[in-house]
Amino acid sequence: MNPLPSWNDTAAKQAIIAFVTKVTNDGSAAFVPPAERVAVFDNDGTLWCEQPLPVQLFFVIDRVKTLLPEHPEWKTEEPFASVLKGDLAAALEGGEPALLALAAATHAGMTTVEFEQIVKNWMATAKHPKTGKRFTEMAYLPMVELLAYLRANGFKTFIISGGGIEFMRPWAEHVYGIPPEQVIGSSIKTKYELRDGEPVLVRLPELNVYNDKAGKPVTINQHIGRRPVMAFGNSTGDKEMLEYTQGGGGARFMLLVLHDDAARDYAYGPALGLPDAQLGSFTQPLYEQALRQGWTVVSEKSDWNLIFAP
Amino acid sequence: MNPLPSWNDTAAKQAIIAFVTKVTNDGSAAFVPPAERVAVFDNDGTLWCEQPLPVQLFFVIDRVKTLLPEHPEWKTEEPFASVLKGDLAAALEGGEPALLALAAATHAGMTTVEFEQIVKNWMATAKHPKTGKRFTEMAYLPMVELLAYLRANGFKTFIISGGGIEFMRPWAEHVYGIPPEQVIGSSIKTKYELRDGEPVLVRLPELNVYNDKAGKPVTINQHIGRRPVMAFGNSTGDKEMLEYTQGGGGARFMLLVLHDDAARDYAYGPALGLPDAQLGSFTQPLYEQALRQGWTVVSEKSDWNLIFAP
Repeated sequence: MNPLPSWNDTAAKQAIIAFVTKVTNDGSAAFVPPAERVAVFDNDGTLWCEQPLPVQLFFVIDRVKTLLPEHPEWKTEEPFASVLKGDLAAALEGGEPALLALAAATHAGMTTVEFEQIVKNWMATAKHPKTGKRFTEMAYLPMVELLAYLRANGFKTFIISGGGIEFMRPWAEHVYGIPPEQVIGSSIKTKYELRDGEPVLVRLPELNVYNDKAGKPVTINQHIGRRPVMAFGNSTGDKEMLEYTQGGGGARFMLLVLHDDAARDYAYGPALGLPDAQLGSFTQPLYEQALRQGWTVVSEKSDWNLIFAP
Repeated sequence: MNPLPSWNDTAAKQAIIAFVTKVTNDGSAAFVPPAERVAVFDNDGTLWCEQPLPVQLFFVIDRVKTLLPEHPEWKTEEPFASVLKGDLAAALEGGEPALLALAAATHAGMTTVEFEQIVKNWMATAKHPKTGKRFTEMAYLPMVELLAYLRANGFKTFIISGGGIEFMRPWAEHVYGIPPEQVIGSSIKTKYELRDGEPVLVRLPELNVYNDKAGKPVTINQHIGRRPVMAFGNSTGDKEMLEYTQGGGGARFMLLVLHDDAARDYAYGPALGLPDAQLGSFTQPLYEQALRQGWTVVSEKSDWNLIFAP
């Protein structure tokens, strides 16, 4: 039986299977005991489509529109005014403070249970602007197969994303087979309190963890407490996570997804003849580091025969 | 086969077994699917002995002595001077700042890998002052049996402790069968960096999470993302964790361990005729709350026929 049917029989697939075969063979010098089989995955651009915007930004835009009746001042107040005009680039000109203001306004003030329901409701109806599919249908099928293949070989699979931990948990189990306790992301602070005698956690408009770049090894240690054996990413935000994984010594496997299929998905990244400005978050130096350090680079054009489930 | 041989056949044991039987019977209205079977345990005083001091304080004392040659100023500087004189009460008169100073001096400055080895080395040699046993041999046998019994019934078992997350992980898997990713505790911050080209996490002298009281529901949500079905504690530090568990609605089980066996362990807590000052962290109001809200209170004297493994 072919465990990775959406993968072409190219070097990338062969490298994955050779690695898993080696570390699960208890006669091999590279054998890794089941308890230590930890595989970590970035989410945006690695497990699902992140173009033309990371999905959570579509959620932010829709939330701003939904909440506008309670906040008429947003019509003239940045970054909200630009969001309402559909000009996200202008909204984000305010940099990190603008992004935090948007996150606080759209993600805080309710209980964790209420927020979970808001995300579920949105996911059930929102659609990708190009394909018209639900965002959860924009998961990369080869990666979903890979997650299942690794679990079948005793790996625990974790998400280590810059996206919101509570934005991913409501659907990650259904879409990826990854339970909430194995989903790690950025977060805002929460506060325990009794509301009408009921114990709840209230979401506060204050950053708790920004889970990107050098923050990823930190949360890997905080949440998992083991160094991963395999790590999967697609951008400079994943560089430190891949380095940290490789630095563990022994058998390690690092992989970057290269988006080079404009017809079936989007094309952005190195080695595509694009000007630097269009490389997005997979930069030329990251590409060169991958080649130098023996990380596998997957071409979605050449290595994947299907990108999304039909 | 008796899954809880160190438990007497009293109401506490019967309540545990009745609850587990009910939530694992898929014909029962109280059935809980395996993915949602989350059980959380405090550590100090719940899973192992916390008298005459929480074990991590013995570690702090020994670390201060070990590091003294590098810090001769500690001989006259508080809180270190009092620690060196063996007067911990005086050392802790400085309150939280004193405790943080001790934690920073003894727990920070090294990499996470180095700290793990320091803890392992200490655990392999340090002994309890009264029993002469290794601290890992001071785990409560009935609770170790309970952890195994719950896992055999599809529960995931987690530690939610005020103690240090990196202090517990090096031995929790061996002693309790709880892997690092299911150990949650207080922590200091860490920073990712390259040391001689090697990616490491360096432990910083700065508090990250204080995992006690109202902080426990917060980290339960942050790390697990589900509301527990069962919760086990022994002190006011566990009150909010138990309330939060019960507040989930549906079938829930909350338990407090009452230390009332001065001969085999220590006696401190309510309903023992002790003056308030000797109740320790299991207060009279907590006891009354347990009775009022239907939480099970385990008497180690009456409900446990063995306390430590012989």
